[in-house]
Amino acid sequence: MAERSLLGVVLGALMLSLSGVNLAAESQTPFVRIAELEIDPAQLEKYKAAVKEEMETSIRLEPGVLAIYSVALKEDPSQLRFFEIYKDEAAYHAHIASAHFRKYVETTKGMIRSRKLLDTVPIQLSVSRHPSL
Amino acid sequence: MAERSLLGVVLGALMLSLSGVNLAAESQTPFVRIAELEIDPAQLEKYKAAVKEEMETSIRLEPGVLAIYSVALKEDPSQLRFFEIYKDEAAYHAHIASAHFRKYVETTKGMIRSRKLLDTVPIQLSVSRHPSL
Repeated sequence: MAERSLLGVVLGALMLSLSGVNLAAESQTPFVRIAELEIDPAQLEKYKAAVKEEMETSIRLEPGVLAIYSVALKEDPSQLRFFEIYKDEAAYHAHIASAHFRKYVETTKGMIRSRKLLDTVPIQLSVSRHPSL
Repeated sequence: MAERSLLGVVLGALMLSLSGVNLAAESQTPFVRIAELEIDPAQLEKYKAAVKEEMETSIRLEPGVLAIYSVALKEDPSQLRFFEIYKDEAAYHAHIASAHFRKYVETTKGMIRSRKLLDTVPIQLSVSRHPSL
C-alpha cells in the first residue's frame, strides 16, 4: 500500500504540468545528457545498486538535477541507457563534481566495460498534466 | 513574460514529486521506449515542426503518455533521440494506433533516413521535488 501511494504521488506530480509546452524554446533551456554504458554482466546487480543510490542522492541533494532516468535494453540487460535533465549546463558540471558522484565513479570503475556520453540540444521536452494514475 | 511563467509552471510541476523513488520497482511499471532517428538534413526543420505537433497532441489527448523528450545530438543535429515514458505497454500501443500518430507517420515518412526502436526495462526513474526555478 505504501509503495502504491508513493507511486501515485510521484506520477501525479510528474503529470501536473502544462502539456505541449516547448521547454527548449524558452530562455532557460535545460541541459540534457544521454549516456550509454555497458556493464560487466557478472557485476550488473552490484552496479545497479550503486547507481540507484547515486541517482537518489543526486535528486535529493541537488536542486539543479531535474530528472535522471535509467533503463536497460531488453535485448541485452548489460547495456544501460541514461537520460538526464539538468536545470542548465552549470548544474550538470556541479553534479559531476559532487562528492556522491565521485564516490559512484570510484565504486563502479571496475564494473563499467564502456561508456559513451552524448551531448545534446533539446528539441522539445513534453510532460503530461493528466492525473491518470 | 508569458513564456517565462509557462516555463516556471512546467518545471515546477516536474519537480514536485518525491525524490529518489524507484518507479521501476513499483507494481505499475511505466513502459519506456527509446527511438534513434536520422533525418534528411534538407528536411530537418519540417520534420521538427511535424514531430513537435505530434508530441504536443499526444501529451494533450492521451492520459497514458506521461512524457516525450526529443533531443538532437550536438555532433550531428540530424541525429535525433527520443525518450518516451508511457503509463504501461498498452498505453504505448494505443499511442501508435492513434490518428495523430498515424498522421505524423504519413507526413514524415519521406523525411526519415533511418529509425531504430529500442525496447527497454526501467531500472530507476527519478524526478526532483525541488522547486528551484
